[in-house]
Amino acid sequence: KRKKLLTPDAYVEGILNGNITTLSQAVTLVESAKKEHQEIAQEIITKCLPYSGKSLRIGITGVPGVGKSTFIESMGKYITKRGGKLAVLAIDPSSERSKGSILGDKTRMEELSSDPNAYIRPSPSAGSLGGVARKTRETIVLCEAAGFDTIFIETVGVGQSETMVHSMVDFFLLLMLAGAGDELQGIKRGIMEMADAITINKADGNNIEKAEMARVQYKNALHLFPPTDSGWNPKVLTCSAFHHIGIDKIWDTIQGYVDLVKKNGYFQHKRNEQSKFWMYETINDRLKSDFYQNDALKTMTKGFEQKVLGEEMSSFVAARELLDFYYQSQKNNK
Amino acid sequence: KRKKLLTPDAYVEGILNGNITTLSQAVTLVESAKKEHQEIAQEIITKCLPYSGKSLRIGITGVPGVGKSTFIESMGKYITKRGGKLAVLAIDPSSERSKGSILGDKTRMEELSSDPNAYIRPSPSAGSLGGVARKTRETIVLCEAAGFDTIFIETVGVGQSETMVHSMVDFFLLLMLAGAGDELQGIKRGIMEMADAITINKADGNNIEKAEMARVQYKNALHLFPPTDSGWNPKVLTCSAFHHIGIDKIWDTIQGYVDLVKKNGYFQHKRNEQSKFWMYETINDRLKSDFYQNDALKTMTKGFEQKVLGEEMSSFVAARELLDFYYQSQKNNK
Repeated sequence: KRKKLLTPDAYVEGILNGNITTLSQAVTLVESAKKEHQEIAQEIITKCLPYSGKSLRIGITGVPGVGKSTFIESMGKYITKRGGKLAVLAIDPSSERSKGSILGDKTRMEELSSDPNAYIRPSPSAGSLGGVARKTRETIVLCEAAGFDTIFIETVGVGQSETMVHSMVDFFLLLMLAGAGDELQGIKRGIMEMADAITINKADGNNIEKAEMARVQYKNALHLFPPTDSGWNPKVLTCSAFHHIGIDKIWDTIQGYVDLVKKNGYFQHKRNEQSKFWMYETINDRLKSDFYQNDALKTMTKGFEQKVLGEEMSSFVAARELLDFYYQSQKNNK
Repeated sequence: KRKKLLTPDAYVEGILNGNITTLSQAVTLVESAKKEHQEIAQEIITKCLPYSGKSLRIGITGVPGVGKSTFIESMGKYITKRGGKLAVLAIDPSSERSKGSILGDKTRMEELSSDPNAYIRPSPSAGSLGGVARKTRETIVLCEAAGFDTIFIETVGVGQSETMVHSMVDFFLLLMLAGAGDELQGIKRGIMEMADAITINKADGNNIEKAEMARVQYKNALHLFPPTDSGWNPKVLTCSAFHHIGIDKIWDTIQGYVDLVKKNGYFQHKRNEQSKFWMYETINDRLKSDFYQNDALKTMTKGFEQKVLGEEMSSFVAARELLDFYYQSQKNNK
């Protein structure tokens, strides 16, 4: 038999008391597709909102093999040892899971998993990227209300997830390896330009010199990029997460960024833009999904796509006829 | 008194005969917001479709001051002298016009303007970026049916227009100036990664050495970017459009690109993806504009946005309530 649901207020109370079990149960409601769960979840989120927003949200990305789990463990322990409370979340739609996200595999972060000041929550596994990202965004609110002052949002660096992460974090960190070229294969074009810092991991042993060379190369390349809106010059660093080398410098860099953007007003500006983004993104996403999930339209859309590809029909005429059909069917159904 | 409209077939016949006056009149219908004009325009486009697709579509961007008009004139004359027929279009919503697009000012391309093998059409001036881009995309079909074998799509390089241009051209050329740094201010982050070639203009006189240095710098920077889907390595070139130096090499580079992507199948693949893009983009755009142009919703949306910014309401609850209201009002109105 399934466990009985609590009242929204009971969840909120538990979360505000920092009760991790209650937090986890509430996150499960956030992730649930059931209507009754969603209604409770939305009430919990609304009630947690006034207690949220005070954490530092850090996006971490990098292709499989770059050492993300080791990095998050090393950086995470660094944070909790200094009295911080860390929540690690992920945006990792199931379609991308096989490509190497770490959070399905908590055992790779043994120390952090058993740290009472760290909360690791794997990505919601089902749904579209937009849906998964939205749930992660909502989970941030709950984690912050529960007292976590640093949030990591991890993503695998191979898909469009980065844009979504970028729209919910204050600082975006890209992990790379030395030996520019092959390692870049997995990184999508455009991601490098989003990074507030690039860190070349595995800078240890024989690899130190190569990492340093890569650092200089990336530094020169970033210099050619247009200036950022934040007024911050993206930094390139090296570290060895495995040997806990350079982690402090990365943390200091993040703090330097935060100092700058809190002073120049960009921090709050970006947060506001993100809040607006998620309101409009949610509207736009649902307008589209309501259209594309309309069963009668699905077949018709596929057929029209073929006609467009065969140059029997212009893209624009196809779009217009599909929309006319959609609005007509909405009228008839209601 | 207004001129009488022709029948769709009469427009099509004129276009297929290469009659520039008829072509211009048809483009005016494409750009018109009037329903009766749009209906004729869509019929003309549909009938021209089988005669379209055979041109090479080249996107040209760069900030004001980079010398775009001189470049288009020089490159354009190079093409028409070799027997080509060139149409020059633009994506330049009015909001961006003041920032320095060239096509409002034909006089800056004197030679090309009077060239019988060149057709210069300024950007449609009204409407959203999406709307303007769509009209330009439709105009390409008519120009191709009229026998133009090369199409330039010009844009100003400061806004989101580049993404739109990118979704309708085969080759994307970014014009830059030497002296990386300040000149980059105007180029939006991410545009450099779209370019199939970067050309450093004004490489003449005292500027040759600086241009060559910039070329090497950009070449090294591009080398750090992830590989392109096309299998093409973006090139960096220098030219002096004013002195007609280096124009031939740019043309050869474009031909080299075309040879490669026609062989490896990317050319047709990209064209197909673009056709699909425009079908879905048109649907998505209209789903959104129908929502956001709903008068009752406009005020409500603004109010909810304020609540979201004031953290009285989560972005997600705001979105849900607005959508519920929208669908309800559609039901009541119809």
